Amino acid sequence: MNFGSDNQAGVSPAILQTLVQAASGIQSAYGNDDWCARAEQMLCEAFDTPLKAFFVATGTAANCLALSTIAQPWNAVVCHDMAHIAVDENSAPEWFTGGARLLPLATDSGKLLAGDLERFLASYPASPPHNMLPSAVSISQVSENGLVYQPHEVAALAASAHAKGLRLHMDGARLANAVAALGCHPADITCKAGVDVLSLGASKNGALMAEAVVFFDQALAEHFRIRQKRAGQLVSKSRLIGAQYCAWLQDGHWLQLARHANASARSLADALVATRAVRLAWPAEANEVFAILPRALHVQLLSHGVRCSDWYDTSIPRGTALAADEMVVRFVASWSSTSDEVQALADLVRSLA
Amino acid sequence: MNFGSDNQAGVSPAILQTLVQAASGIQSAYGNDDWCARAEQMLCEAFDTPLKAFFVATGTAANCLALSTIAQPWNAVVCHDMAHIAVDENSAPEWFTGGARLLPLATDSGKLLAGDLERFLASYPASPPHNMLPSAVSISQVSENGLVYQPHEVAALAASAHAKGLRLHMDGARLANAVAALGCHPADITCKAGVDVLSLGASKNGALMAEAVVFFDQALAEHFRIRQKRAGQLVSKSRLIGAQYCAWLQDGHWLQLARHANASARSLADALVATRAVRLAWPAEANEVFAILPRALHVQLLSHGVRCSDWYDTSIPRGTALAADEMVVRFVASWSSTSDEVQALADLVRSLA
Amino acid sequence: MNFGSDNQAGVSPAILQTLVQAASGIQSAYGNDDWCARAEQMLCEAFDTPLKAFFVATGTAANCLALSTIAQPWNAVVCHDMAHIAVDENSAPEWFTGGARLLPLATDSGKLLAGDLERFLASYPASPPHNMLPSAVSISQVSENGLVYQPHEVAALAASAHAKGLRLHMDGARLANAVAALGCHPADITCKAGVDVLSLGASKNGALMAEAVVFFDQALAEHFRIRQKRAGQLVSKSRLIGAQYCAWLQDGHWLQLARHANASARSLADALVATRAVRLAWPAEANEVFAILPRALHVQLLSHGVRCSDWYDTSIPRGTALAADEMVVRFVASWSSTSDEVQALADLVRSLA
Amino acid sequence: MNFGSDNQAGVSPAILQTLVQAASGIQSAYGNDDWCARAEQMLCEAFDTPLKAFFVATGTAANCLALSTIAQPWNAVVCHDMAHIAVDENSAPEWFTGGARLLPLATDSGKLLAGDLERFLASYPASPPHNMLPSAVSISQVSENGLVYQPHEVAALAASAHAKGLRLHMDGARLANAVAALGCHPADITCKAGVDVLSLGASKNGALMAEAVVFFDQALAEHFRIRQKRAGQLVSKSRLIGAQYCAWLQDGHWLQLARHANASARSLADALVATRAVRLAWPAEANEVFAILPRALHVQLLSHGVRCSDWYDTSIPRGTALAADEMVVRFVASWSSTSDEVQALADLVRSLA
Repeated sequence: MNFGSDNQAGVSPAILQTLVQAASGIQSAYGNDDWCARAEQMLCEAFDTPLKAFFVATGTAANCLALSTIAQPWNAVVCHDMAHIAVDENSAPEWFTGGARLLPLATDSGKLLAGDLERFLASYPASPPHNMLPSAVSISQVSENGLVYQPHEVAALAASAHAKGLRLHMDGARLANAVAALGCHPADITCKAGVDVLSLGASKNGALMAEAVVFFDQALAEHFRIRQKRAGQLVSKSRLIGAQYCAWLQDGHWLQLARHANASARSLADALVATRAVRLAWPAEANEVFAILPRALHVQLLSHGVRCSDWYDTSIPRGTALAADEMVVRFVASWSSTSDEVQALADLVRSLA
Repeated sequence: MNFGSDNQAGVSPAILQTLVQAASGIQSAYGNDDWCARAEQMLCEAFDTPLKAFFVATGTAANCLALSTIAQPWNAVVCHDMAHIAVDENSAPEWFTGGARLLPLATDSGKLLAGDLERFLASYPASPPHNMLPSAVSISQVSENGLVYQPHEVAALAASAHAKGLRLHMDGARLANAVAALGCHPADITCKAGVDVLSLGASKNGALMAEAVVFFDQALAEHFRIRQKRAGQLVSKSRLIGAQYCAWLQDGHWLQLARHANASARSLADALVATRAVRLAWPAEANEVFAILPRALHVQLLSHGVRCSDWYDTSIPRGTALAADEMVVRFVASWSSTSDEVQALADLVRSLA
Repeated sequence: MNFGSDNQAGVSPAILQTLVQAASGIQSAYGNDDWCARAEQMLCEAFDTPLKAFFVATGTAANCLALSTIAQPWNAVVCHDMAHIAVDENSAPEWFTGGARLLPLATDSGKLLAGDLERFLASYPASPPHNMLPSAVSISQVSENGLVYQPHEVAALAASAHAKGLRLHMDGARLANAVAALGCHPADITCKAGVDVLSLGASKNGALMAEAVVFFDQALAEHFRIRQKRAGQLVSKSRLIGAQYCAWLQDGHWLQLARHANASARSLADALVATRAVRLAWPAEANEVFAILPRALHVQLLSHGVRCSDWYDTSIPRGTALAADEMVVRFVASWSSTSDEVQALADLVRSLA
Repeated sequence: MNFGSDNQAGVSPAILQTLVQAASGIQSAYGNDDWCARAEQMLCEAFDTPLKAFFVATGTAANCLALSTIAQPWNAVVCHDMAHIAVDENSAPEWFTGGARLLPLATDSGKLLAGDLERFLASYPASPPHNMLPSAVSISQVSENGLVYQPHEVAALAASAHAKGLRLHMDGARLANAVAALGCHPADITCKAGVDVLSLGASKNGALMAEAVVFFDQALAEHFRIRQKRAGQLVSKSRLIGAQYCAWLQDGHWLQLARHANASARSLADALVATRAVRLAWPAEANEVFAILPRALHVQLLSHGVRCSDWYDTSIPRGTALAADEMVVRFVASWSSTSDEVQALADLVRSLA
């Protein structure tokens, strides 16, 4: 019963097979190999637009290198107050940008919407040189609460941001899950909606270690190879990452993997709610279930070997209250989750409740 | 005829097999997996000492994160003037350390020896707060000229450094090649000789992407997990790297790979010199051959599909001169170099000269 | 009618006279002059404790250099959400600390009290390496809302901070005004109350340019001269600043100046309230008056040549609401404010309302 | 006998008088005062060109903020190997630029000339992303060896730099001395010669604390006010610095002060050489005398109360050798040096030799 995180899952056989294939023979180093070239080409096709892609080792690096191209050290980046970059990446944003500041906003919807941005900017005291000037907005798709931004929501946010001269970054660590959930074209929630630069993660969706920074606004990529090198993110045998992307994108494999994970999460959410021992903090729109449950139940689940995460109290919707003996727990389904696991967890909860 | 770099070679079958094995199933993320734990244990055994090991994505990151633990932003790091950190890693040292400065020294030996350090420090105007205070020395084993530090040379340098309150970092991107060349115990040129922190690279010696920071002085590791996270170097599925180290260290595989590469380079060096068309800039003590040859010959080699690197003019021994039509070319042998390749290159050079 | 800011006022005659005296003749540079030595000694006497003092050019530098000694680049600094360091110093805190993050808290009291800190830390997810670890608290005395921390409030906050391993920094840009308002000994709200490091400003209270970083915990000062130099804050003719501090501290001059400014602000607050056209956002406890008034009135005041500052809407007490036509305006009295000015402004307001 | 440094001298009466005048009354803060505006206008007139000027607290800040506008964190700045920025400002250049690297060149002339730059760039391995790309050249006028760049030398260097896409920064801590020595128009060695940005210091030439960053290429100044603020270099009562510049520039006062200092240094150099106990390391072209003298003599001078500086052994011309008992000593004359002092020192040397 492994619902700890999708980054604890193993590697999809199709990806592993390609990785093994790529591991042999001579290839140029530092991103100049055939696999990276092909992966970039496949990304162009997947998003149906010209783009520039760079392959890095971690989602933290992808996010923060991306931010460094749209925020000077004296700029601010508006984000949701549960944003991964604000909560879970230590001081990486500050470090990669040379000191830019995150401005995290609490919202009612659990997402950062155009209206949230506009209200914030309307009252933000941007009087230079004393105040910091926002230069960018960053959102996560899927959001940190497991919610999926609709194409029109991304487009409206991008329009609001661009109208104020801000660029839009998307943390797509689970972009595949969002595309799968929406059943839309990948471009609909990214380039067509106005995203300037995307962190596209495959590691949480079947790959071993594959993260990319994808520039839809290619001018932003001007010094990126240098940024990558000086950050220790230019992997010598970069075919490792390029090959994984090739396999991931081939024949829609990435969306198959994501659809499975999403379906598993939905099953799990339904099963958990049906036990009546648990309520959901947020709808399970993608592959994550944020559940509110008794602390005692959580302890018992752990003792039965369930992997899940003690989550932030502050992540629940405004207006929702936790009882003193309640807590938030995150369950994440992955490409490798099984219906047996889902059933077993639901049965266990029912038996314990 | 692939002598471009050992980081262009493929992955050793034994390592690949273990990597495939590790790719399946659930593992904790962020360095907390079983493979990383076992790899650290195997490193303790290989170096026959307690140590702390952290696994990162690139040699640049390993070097610069290591330096960040022994140099405050206002400190200086003494190194050889051809040091990889000084020449080939862009501004990564400055960035990771928050502004520490490299002090590159030209030397007669092509290595940085105790005497070089002592002479330098004797005349260095370390008058704070105006001048920067050196806090560390960094050497590469194998050196950037393909030379191998003898155990007594490392020990003498460490003693000189420590006597002045400086720590010793070793860039061991090719440490295996040095151990293989010397036929010594790995500890003899590292922990026993006084190295405080080691960057230990496997990527150039048969792995796919495996770099480690190894602390013999474990107190230096105090905040390392945080440094790693904020630098985007805490890989989620870290088993990827841990597993490679396990296979690499298993039954001395790393030294077998290195011995093969070294032997290939020696054969190549001998064969090249025998053609009389080429002379060596430095003895080929490990797996690299630094050759001085006519520019026209280099062009012809490239046109015949030979992979090799146009190298720095300034890398030759002081007192040696390049003729106007000469240049330095680096040939690197790897674990996968074949005697046929070596022979073919030598034959080609002979035929062209 | 000059109430724009106390940093727009001129220099007290006593300070200017000493500055003129110090301007002649030879003095060692870079903080090694007689005036700086004497100023440090006078600070020891004023605070009745051993301390180390360093003289810098701006309050921004004093605050941020102080923070750099108590926050590593991966640490966080808890402060009030209106804190000058959070609102008005651009990205200086991030830059001086190498990336530390401010964690601004909204509070009911307009100050940051022990209870606020404790509640925050109780729910703060300090799970390294993902989350940032708070290492310090920073408050301003006088606070950004013109409120004065009582000695017991500082002591309670310091105790709470220290109990969690956090250090306490005080931004004392208007410390003299706080001491004058409380009628306490300077030590009562600083070293005796548990402040570890103090930014002590004289520029807003009669000096020309005189800011100091005062370490009550002298161990924190270990590398401070180097920090100062590399930040471009080691003024060569440092006697300039040392001499001003000597004059400022001499015979309680600093407190005389502050008492005058405070009294002027209280008169002004009373006079403004008496007009019934204006209400106070906060009690005028020191030398600042935060007034809520009609926007139209503000326009008229400006057109009559009144200097005052359009202030942050968000600075008013929680629970207080601004009407659509209202705004917050800050009036600051200085050592050179006159009762005629105060009366003239009150008369003007009355005539316009 | 005070020849320690021109930054140990007092303040010229004319400057002090203006400073006193400026100290009274209300003025806008943060560089928006009348004095700063007038100082900028006077600089335009002095250099006979449109320019933008910003006033900061130290020469370190002026130099490093200037460099931050012409060097990205991944760029390199070519300078002389005795450059003040390379030797005497700790890690400030790295810090202000976010990690840019200095590339110090040893030269025969004691200056950095066009030929030096061209030779260096011809062999510099600028292969991105591995190597750092030079983006700027920085020279000091007067140079660190007390030498003065001729107008044609600056122009040739600027032409070479610009031809390679590099910008030219001039550290003009002693620019007045250079102008006075050359008898040229200030523009001849700055804007007309191709300098892009100038650090113009007054503190070493009669002011109390007055440093400016002067942009001849005004586009470089785009974000300078923000850079200044976040570096803690935006002095609130900036009139302090503006007023000093007004007095300094008024009626050529800066050049009168510099001519006096230069003449004193020349007298001292002549007198020292005439004693035959001392030889000059470099010609005394401005207000500094770099003398080679016996260590024993230096000790005696100190014991007789002479202020002078033990200087870098490495600063002497290549090809010159110090005897074992010799050292380099720097004597600096200032606007306030007297012929009596010069004579007294010469007499003392003669009596001791």
